[in-house]
Amino acid sequence: MANHPRNLLVAQSGGPTAVINNSLVGVIEEAKGKREIGIVIGAERGIEGVLGERLLDLSREAPETLAALRQTPSAALGTSRHKLKGDDLERIVDVFRKYDVGYFCYIGGNDSMDTADRIGALALERGYDLRVIGIPKTVDNDLMETDHCPGYGSAARFVASTLRDAGLDTEAGAASTPVKIIEIMGRHAGWLTAASVLAREGRAGAAPHLVYVPERPVTVDGILADIERVVRRLGMAVVAVSEGIRDPEGHFLAASTAIDAFGHQQLGGVSAYLADQVTRATGLKARFEKPDTMQRASTCLISSTDAQEAYEVGAAAVRAAVAGETGQMVTLVREPGPEYRVHTGLVPLSWVANRERHLPEAYMADPEEGATEAFLAYARPLIGPPLPAHGRLARYPLAR
Amino acid sequence: MANHPRNLLVAQSGGPTAVINNSLVGVIEEAKGKREIGIVIGAERGIEGVLGERLLDLSREAPETLAALRQTPSAALGTSRHKLKGDDLERIVDVFRKYDVGYFCYIGGNDSMDTADRIGALALERGYDLRVIGIPKTVDNDLMETDHCPGYGSAARFVASTLRDAGLDTEAGAASTPVKIIEIMGRHAGWLTAASVLAREGRAGAAPHLVYVPERPVTVDGILADIERVVRRLGMAVVAVSEGIRDPEGHFLAASTAIDAFGHQQLGGVSAYLADQVTRATGLKARFEKPDTMQRASTCLISSTDAQEAYEVGAAAVRAAVAGETGQMVTLVREPGPEYRVHTGLVPLSWVANRERHLPEAYMADPEEGATEAFLAYARPLIGPPLPAHGRLARYPLAR
Repeated sequence: MANHPRNLLVAQSGGPTAVINNSLVGVIEEAKGKREIGIVIGAERGIEGVLGERLLDLSREAPETLAALRQTPSAALGTSRHKLKGDDLERIVDVFRKYDVGYFCYIGGNDSMDTADRIGALALERGYDLRVIGIPKTVDNDLMETDHCPGYGSAARFVASTLRDAGLDTEAGAASTPVKIIEIMGRHAGWLTAASVLAREGRAGAAPHLVYVPERPVTVDGILADIERVVRRLGMAVVAVSEGIRDPEGHFLAASTAIDAFGHQQLGGVSAYLADQVTRATGLKARFEKPDTMQRASTCLISSTDAQEAYEVGAAAVRAAVAGETGQMVTLVREPGPEYRVHTGLVPLSWVANRERHLPEAYMADPEEGATEAFLAYARPLIGPPLPAHGRLARYPLAR
Repeated sequence: MANHPRNLLVAQSGGPTAVINNSLVGVIEEAKGKREIGIVIGAERGIEGVLGERLLDLSREAPETLAALRQTPSAALGTSRHKLKGDDLERIVDVFRKYDVGYFCYIGGNDSMDTADRIGALALERGYDLRVIGIPKTVDNDLMETDHCPGYGSAARFVASTLRDAGLDTEAGAASTPVKIIEIMGRHAGWLTAASVLAREGRAGAAPHLVYVPERPVTVDGILADIERVVRRLGMAVVAVSEGIRDPEGHFLAASTAIDAFGHQQLGGVSAYLADQVTRATGLKARFEKPDTMQRASTCLISSTDAQEAYEVGAAAVRAAVAGETGQMVTLVREPGPEYRVHTGLVPLSWVANRERHLPEAYMADPEEGATEAFLAYARPLIGPPLPAHGRLARYPLAR
């Protein structure tokens, strides 16, 4: 690489998370003072900002701004869902050349790792000196080769906390409305829905009472039978359901069954559909919640562990690039032993690009159990400190 | 009243809130050590627990349990939506006699204040010595005669925080999905939806960008035109919409327009319906969130001010009963002056029973403003400390 300092360009891509700004700040702060690096350039809205030369000088941002961004959900640079086309790749390398970009850090999911990989390959082909490092990010936790993905821990904390609160609320009013259906993000993988089981904290009868993930095919009739059985036993049923649950033919449950006889697709997703079906078929009153993007953007449920790890993968990307690495994604590697410890690693971008990691068999259980102990041991440290303690009445019967 | 100590019965009614357990603990702790009071009896599931004699001895609950309940959303005793019928009132007075209940504290909304009033009247008619005090509770903030209702401040904090987070999330991805519709509780009154405006904190362009309350009739076409106009100006539109918004004929928007040509009612409520309409009519991609009961049961967004006031109205009810008051509801009275201070007062139950308080004209604004400064001054102290600070990039353009 050239002897003069070269600039580092960073961008954020795909769905925002509660902690993706930590990765951005990790990049900016780690780059500061490195003699190999000139300024840190931020591209607005992912690769679109490179194509359109909407570029910011992030080296000038105040330390207080960066500190505050570490507590700020969503992607401060904006994100993109742009699919590369035509001569986009050529254009990107030209823009990098124009701004003397020697290091490119791309924060995103498996699509973004593919984009980063292709940019690196073209630069190499053109003899343009560029080091490309991917920084993992996704609430779906579905990237290969990393123990878990920054963004997941905070979303999982949101899901666990929400299910715990919903359990209390449903229990209080179960005499009139015994069923609550909560729709969790994850069209292809059940990692986030499985995290709902962390709400139980070992308490018998606690929510969630039923859990459905995309990896396990289900039918509407099966779900209704489960709900009726649980309500008979507990007087209520709080249900965590992935937006992406499918029938045995592989069709999304909401899409395949929520079209009425006249061909009208129902609105509101699978939770609205199931709540309606419960009431029609069983007579049990049901409500639903669809927190949607709240799951990835909740300020008050950021996992401190997740935030710190998101920062560290950003900083590690800069160190790797300066050390001469390219075409790699930073990973989180969990150390063996009872205490939770991780360090960062590197894997080739091509091992991650366009691939999805699903819940392994060892983590999946029947809908009532929801997830195995092995999953809970995996996920528990990721959500940060335990949820704040709740009180429960001892319920001393009155002496007559 | 008899010279021997008589028992106090407390029950919780209607929808739970994040702080209703504070009122319960306020009753229990204030009753402790009062020589006029024997034990504190808790009825499970409101008045149903009295009718069915499902009664608990709350005086035996450990102090640590009570302390933990102050951080626990939902109604620990369970709640009821039971409507009084037949000889229920007679039966209630008989049960009170059986358990020597001399004081009855009912925590609930305007329905519950009616119930409490009627129980008091019958006891008087029967010559049964009973003091009845109502304790206000509702996230809807729609009780007459009190400055605000315990439960509202925490729900308002949830709404403000959620809209602020949604603003950040939508801004980051506005290039692909510029519209977000968030459905807020409140079938008849817009207090909670108006609280979304607290999310802005004076920042120009911040969410919410449009606010619709039940008190101001709207049409779907009007909302779509508003959204298109705002998106043209800001590149996005984050919309807070009351579940109870109505058209000029007074029909619920979701109910009146969301029935298709074949008479099928759409699922998912007004937010799902509007998001669908936006995409169909304008081509702008729209998402919706329906947090439903999360609004009244969020552990992490309890307003400390609200929690403390909920405790105090419970304690004040006991003091009032012991002092000889009956047929009254405790109120919160805001003191004049720039600093936020409240004290408790009393009003006859009949002034509150079955009545609803709507947003006054002075608090309502056009959909873009959402609520007036007067409303913000009213609501701001209720949500507790300011929301945690967020960071924003200064966005220094890159020198070329």
